Amino acid sequence: MADHLFKHLVVVKFKEGIVVEEILSGMEKLVSDIDAVISFEWGIDIESLEMLRQGYTHAFVMTFKSKDDYNSYLAHPKHVEYSAIFSQVIDKIIMLDFPAVQSKSPP
Amino acid sequence: MADHLFKHLVVVKFKEGIVVEEILSGMEKLVSDIDAVISFEWGIDIESLEMLRQGYTHAFVMTFKSKDDYNSYLAHPKHVEYSAIFSQVIDKIIMLDFPAVQSKSPP
Repeated sequence: MADHLFKHLVVVKFKEGIVVEEILSGMEKLVSDIDAVISFEWGIDIESLEMLRQGYTHAFVMTFKSKDDYNSYLAHPKHVEYSAIFSQVIDKIIMLDFPAVQSKSPP
Repeated sequence: MADHLFKHLVVVKFKEGIVVEEILSGMEKLVSDIDAVISFEWGIDIESLEMLRQGYTHAFVMTFKSKDDYNSYLAHPKHVEYSAIFSQVIDKIIMLDFPAVQSKSPP
């Protein structure tokens, strides 16, 4: 079996009054600074019913070549520094980390 | 601004005793049958602390060219049929739907 890319998925609700743009630009800078992150996509929910999104508003998906690369990202001093800030601005969070099964690929 | 790809993110915990493999192969068949889905990736969490994944185990990410394509997927009879089954096997679910900002792309 081919190696799977490793995905780090984060879904959050920010605290009231937080300037989310600053947090997001910090995150974009973080992933651009750390080579282990090979791609980063994020978005703000615009569609789901409240009962389905349960207050969560933002989704972030980072992709790594391997779990080892993900671990090196976690241990990176810039990530450690950013996490300390991030943990203070979130109301709630869900995080899943998984080897990605690519079931349908773009043609 | 360029059109964003539209992402449909689903995070679930299945009910006890469910044969998850059957549900997953049904989902893979569904997305392979519906052209509006341009890519589909999923995975089973292997890494997060329980306090961070909060009981959720599976993540599914579908990508569409546009929100219109996503809407046509939602309305597709095969999706409607599958949803009826899926809603019976999940313990809890979070869903976010968003235009994806591609902040870092693979080289």
